Amino acid sequence: MLILVTNDDGYLSKGLSTLIRVAKNFGNVYVVAPLHGSSGLSHSITMKIPIRVKEHKTNENGVKFYICSGTPVDSVKLALNKILPRKPDLVLSGINHGSNSSISVIYSGTMAAALEASMNGIPAIGFSLLDYDEDADFTASEYYAKVIIEKIIKNKKKYPQGVALNVNIPKCSLKKIKGIKIVRIAKGVWKEEFDERVDPHNQKYYWLTGGFHNYEPDAIDTDEWVLKNNYISIVPVHADITAYFAFEYLRKLKL
Amino acid sequence: MLILVTNDDGYLSKGLSTLIRVAKNFGNVYVVAPLHGSSGLSHSITMKIPIRVKEHKTNENGVKFYICSGTPVDSVKLALNKILPRKPDLVLSGINHGSNSSISVIYSGTMAAALEASMNGIPAIGFSLLDYDEDADFTASEYYAKVIIEKIIKNKKKYPQGVALNVNIPKCSLKKIKGIKIVRIAKGVWKEEFDERVDPHNQKYYWLTGGFHNYEPDAIDTDEWVLKNNYISIVPVHADITAYFAFEYLRKLKL
Repeated sequence: MLILVTNDDGYLSKGLSTLIRVAKNFGNVYVVAPLHGSSGLSHSITMKIPIRVKEHKTNENGVKFYICSGTPVDSVKLALNKILPRKPDLVLSGINHGSNSSISVIYSGTMAAALEASMNGIPAIGFSLLDYDEDADFTASEYYAKVIIEKIIKNKKKYPQGVALNVNIPKCSLKKIKGIKIVRIAKGVWKEEFDERVDPHNQKYYWLTGGFHNYEPDAIDTDEWVLKNNYISIVPVHADITAYFAFEYLRKLKL
Repeated sequence: MLILVTNDDGYLSKGLSTLIRVAKNFGNVYVVAPLHGSSGLSHSITMKIPIRVKEHKTNENGVKFYICSGTPVDSVKLALNKILPRKPDLVLSGINHGSNSSISVIYSGTMAAALEASMNGIPAIGFSLLDYDEDADFTASEYYAKVIIEKIIKNKKKYPQGVALNVNIPKCSLKKIKGIKIVRIAKGVWKEEFDERVDPHNQKYYWLTGGFHNYEPDAIDTDEWVLKNNYISIVPVHADITAYFAFEYLRKLKL
């Protein structure tokens, strides 16, 4: 097994080193991770400035580790095209410090990296722990990441084309986690509350801030609900954003 | 009608001024557009640096025009939360200089802006012309943007919740356009070919480059096919990227 590991929190994050440790149980590991924290960069790619890559000397035995100056998606593209000796068997992204459930998946660099791999026909899993702390406790995440990856590898031949898995792990102890649920994305939205300030030169500026609003808090088949109830959520995601249900409306317009 | 216009090519682009001209036929227009060209920024948001907004004095009569230092999605978020007097009735994005068909929609700032509006319950249309030229001919785009917007406004009450329209216009004269087709996203991928160079300080760097590869060139119900045959493509898109077809595989894993 050749496994690529990446993330969006940057090459120094604790979540990444946890995921590398997990990946080493299953095969030959390459890491290509962003130099900078890249949360909220979604599926962005770097086109106007050059991308740099540097090998990173690490203590991780047998792991080839590269730092990429670009985005998480750049890292995957570079890995697939310039760094890895062949197409990997699996791409792992994370473990993200913070949730990527519900609509947050759209903004997530972690999940964009996994999706980019899936778009290239590679099974891919993004992991996120619902804890933004730099020094978050990844014990439960590490345990369950192993469980999930093992099952996916065993059933690799039937893995559906073009799909990435969005795994979110509740912030609680290993003992308190009730299990794993296969669910859909909860409908919700980030309600922004821009923080307006004035700089020392008397110019206004804004910080993007806000809170998540769940439109369907009682829907038990959603990631939000199972996470609130101490289950791990797995949502299969894909890049085909065609809204097939809207075809009827559009056809009736007789455009 | 209150209409928000934005784009990803930046506030000075010809495609934007074309779309503003179109929008003025239908109501009161606010423009909140990025300062810089933001192609390929996808759904990224600015969290680590402050966002600046400046009013732009323009010759466009009756149009309120603001320049945002952030991404296309930041521009929409700021417009909805800080700039517009109320929730707009319609959000228009573009007209993009270059295609956003097939999988390119995932990387597109133009379509991310439209999707962000749709996620907030606002009908939204992104327009793209298959011509990257700064001085591209938007005659046909302008004509058909009017046709499409008029129909959407007339049928606004039935507009499906959470949907944005991805409109791509072939690069040809108005006369040669055969009509409009409601289609799905063609399956395809960008095949990267990183351009490797050495800088004056003897350090390697890469430019992201490559070409689009269509996996289903003969599928007549796809955006790629109709565009190649001189039709305008409309793909309804949404942010729910749950891959429902993968549930069966995952449930069989007994995780």
